[in-house]
Amino acid sequence: MPLDHTHDPAARSWLAAANEDGCDFPVQNLPFALLRPRDSRQALRGAVAIGDQALDLAALAATGLVGAEAAPALQAAAQPTLNAFMAAGPTAWRALRHALFALLREGAPQQTTLRTCMLALADVEYALPAQVGDYTDFYTSLDHARNCMRIMYPDADVTPNFRWLPQAYHGRVSTLGVSGQRFRRPHGQYLPRGASTPVFAPCAAMDYECELGLWVGPGNAAGQPIALAQAEQHLFGISLLNDWSARDIQVWEMQPLGPFHAKNFATTLSPWIVTMDALAPYRLPWTRAADDVQPLPYLDAPANREHGAIDIRLEVLLHSEAARQAGRAPARLSGTSFRHQYWTAAQMLAHHTAGGCALQPGDLIGTGTISGPTKGEAGALIELARGGQEPVDIGGAEERGFLADGDTVILRGWCEAPGAARIGFGECQGTLLAALG
Amino acid sequence: MPLDHTHDPAARSWLAAANEDGCDFPVQNLPFALLRPRDSRQALRGAVAIGDQALDLAALAATGLVGAEAAPALQAAAQPTLNAFMAAGPTAWRALRHALFALLREGAPQQTTLRTCMLALADVEYALPAQVGDYTDFYTSLDHARNCMRIMYPDADVTPNFRWLPQAYHGRVSTLGVSGQRFRRPHGQYLPRGASTPVFAPCAAMDYECELGLWVGPGNAAGQPIALAQAEQHLFGISLLNDWSARDIQVWEMQPLGPFHAKNFATTLSPWIVTMDALAPYRLPWTRAADDVQPLPYLDAPANREHGAIDIRLEVLLHSEAARQAGRAPARLSGTSFRHQYWTAAQMLAHHTAGGCALQPGDLIGTGTISGPTKGEAGALIELARGGQEPVDIGGAEERGFLADGDTVILRGWCEAPGAARIGFGECQGTLLAALG
Repeated sequence: MPLDHTHDPAARSWLAAANEDGCDFPVQNLPFALLRPRDSRQALRGAVAIGDQALDLAALAATGLVGAEAAPALQAAAQPTLNAFMAAGPTAWRALRHALFALLREGAPQQTTLRTCMLALADVEYALPAQVGDYTDFYTSLDHARNCMRIMYPDADVTPNFRWLPQAYHGRVSTLGVSGQRFRRPHGQYLPRGASTPVFAPCAAMDYECELGLWVGPGNAAGQPIALAQAEQHLFGISLLNDWSARDIQVWEMQPLGPFHAKNFATTLSPWIVTMDALAPYRLPWTRAADDVQPLPYLDAPANREHGAIDIRLEVLLHSEAARQAGRAPARLSGTSFRHQYWTAAQMLAHHTAGGCALQPGDLIGTGTISGPTKGEAGALIELARGGQEPVDIGGAEERGFLADGDTVILRGWCEAPGAARIGFGECQGTLLAALG
Repeated sequence: MPLDHTHDPAARSWLAAANEDGCDFPVQNLPFALLRPRDSRQALRGAVAIGDQALDLAALAATGLVGAEAAPALQAAAQPTLNAFMAAGPTAWRALRHALFALLREGAPQQTTLRTCMLALADVEYALPAQVGDYTDFYTSLDHARNCMRIMYPDADVTPNFRWLPQAYHGRVSTLGVSGQRFRRPHGQYLPRGASTPVFAPCAAMDYECELGLWVGPGNAAGQPIALAQAEQHLFGISLLNDWSARDIQVWEMQPLGPFHAKNFATTLSPWIVTMDALAPYRLPWTRAADDVQPLPYLDAPANREHGAIDIRLEVLLHSEAARQAGRAPARLSGTSFRHQYWTAAQMLAHHTAGGCALQPGDLIGTGTISGPTKGEAGALIELARGGQEPVDIGGAEERGFLADGDTVILRGWCEAPGAARIGFGECQGTLLAALG
């Protein structure tokens, strides 16, 4: 992936907070979100994160500080939804990235004016960054799929199709929420252990799934597939995504049509979208073991083998209600990297459209749970706690087989690589409330 | 269901075509669509069908002929999408129905003005009636489910959950189309007969599915289920729906997440939505055999047992390219009624929201294939032709195991009952084109 001066690890911002160690939003990142001042009821507008501030792009557009080359992209990104900016494509995205980098780097002029366009991150509220036309969720971690199968059948492998195609199902748009989402434990049908007839009751096996959310840029017309080699031109950026899952409901309902009730009550996204441009320094080769199934030609391309993988580090934390009240920190449950995924983001897009399915700007694609090869790298509690049979210690004499009411699950993500800055995704957090009485 | 004067079978329209035998759109029907003059590029607007005409509701609103009680509903229905009208709810829908009935019945005044608001059905083009937030497809015909199972396993029954819950999966919004949709045969992965590794090739087992599309009216907030007894208050009306299906792709991909590629390339809807009010005379009791599974309490209510079923007659026709060129009529493949469905529309809505999933105005819910108890009542070709093994004669020395390029599939629907007028749904037709070269 081509790197340029915006990836220079030595670059610093005139905003001191952006240069601090461990800051998710240095000048090399420049992720996008949709937000407004908290409780303001003002119009939503696009913004870019820098240090502990959000640069309000509607306010920036009004200053006239951004030149003609990036002005159309800035106008699109300043709207009350990012769909038009996502539709604008890589050249427009890059023009705005370069303009913002020039304004925010150390030594840039007009800092006084720019400061008037800043909102403290602590004082904003977020919305979903785009109107999502369709949300698709993939299932592309071999380690996750194998872990789940083995909880039910000790010697089982994944289904034969897993190694041939990136599996996916369509998910629910209406219950997508942004970090901070709070939702009730769902009721549903499931078979209690040992029972032969189902009950309708609050889920007794609530879980999370640590995923990434891929945001679609320019779409494709129905019947016009996107070739693998072009797939990343249609990808705007990546958020964190928690695919909350009701495991007991899922097991009972999913034959033969897949998950429905088990997933459609809530899905939580981090507000900030890290662009594909910002992720360029963290790309890695994508490989398949020589004795494994090799991809069919429509899922194979030199560029995908050369740098199809992305080393996005991920971490899952759980903050119980008791821990919050006692002032204890969240417990770290696991950590892994997206680099282990069996299929790449580009392969997901290419497969998605290979039959003629249309993608539209602002469509959302979940990667599926991201688990790594070792036990501490599992992206869902069902894997860590072996289906609830081996509860996980979360400190304060608490343990979890599945989630408890009041639990807040926090996903974090970041990238680091030799010769590159560290950039982060911010947080994706959501809280499980008690079931409706 | 309460009937009123708008259901009087003796009522006639001053528009003569509406009174003809077999006309789908008599004055008792008054279905809604979104349309504009063909090739006009004018704004879309809501319309109501009467005889061979469409009453343009934007034009009607400009006349001032509709009184204060129904004027807000008319304004909503005149917009370039019907979402706001769908959101308005049963009282508003009924007010407009009564106002339109009064304007269109025999002897009504202002006929000259009303004629200026009419567009010939032959000269309009349709669009999807609403911006669909989410599309869900159910699987609720026991006969269809059993037929499909038995093609693969002669003595198999449906999965155990089938009799306990209305099964469903989320479908694709971006490729929903209105009658007249033309789409390419999709490529996809499948296992050729006898092969052990899949190919990526044009689907060799293209099928249709005869369904109904339920249009959601007022929605529900996430976490606030809709009780079965209230479910029909959230249902605006019903269209015909063809859930095109690539069977070979489906068989290979659907374990464990359900259908994806096999369905997401195209789904076709009839343009006209017959309202729940118009369907009131054709309601029937919903029953379960005494020795069958009885519904759990959240899927059971007196009103659902009393009139949960709807006797919507359905017919599937196939018009091959050769037949069209030779001037032959379409071949009738099958016919049945929605009355046989194992779960009702209300049960689908109640189950859909029981876990807290939010529905929004304009959401679309497919019923799943509608097959009746006898062979001639199957709603998909895979059932009629036993998985392609017993091709169906379509006349002109042609037969079909699965669909051929150039085939147009036509769905028709209508209702009739003692003491009620006959009303129809118009047609839902779509054409399969050759795969991309």
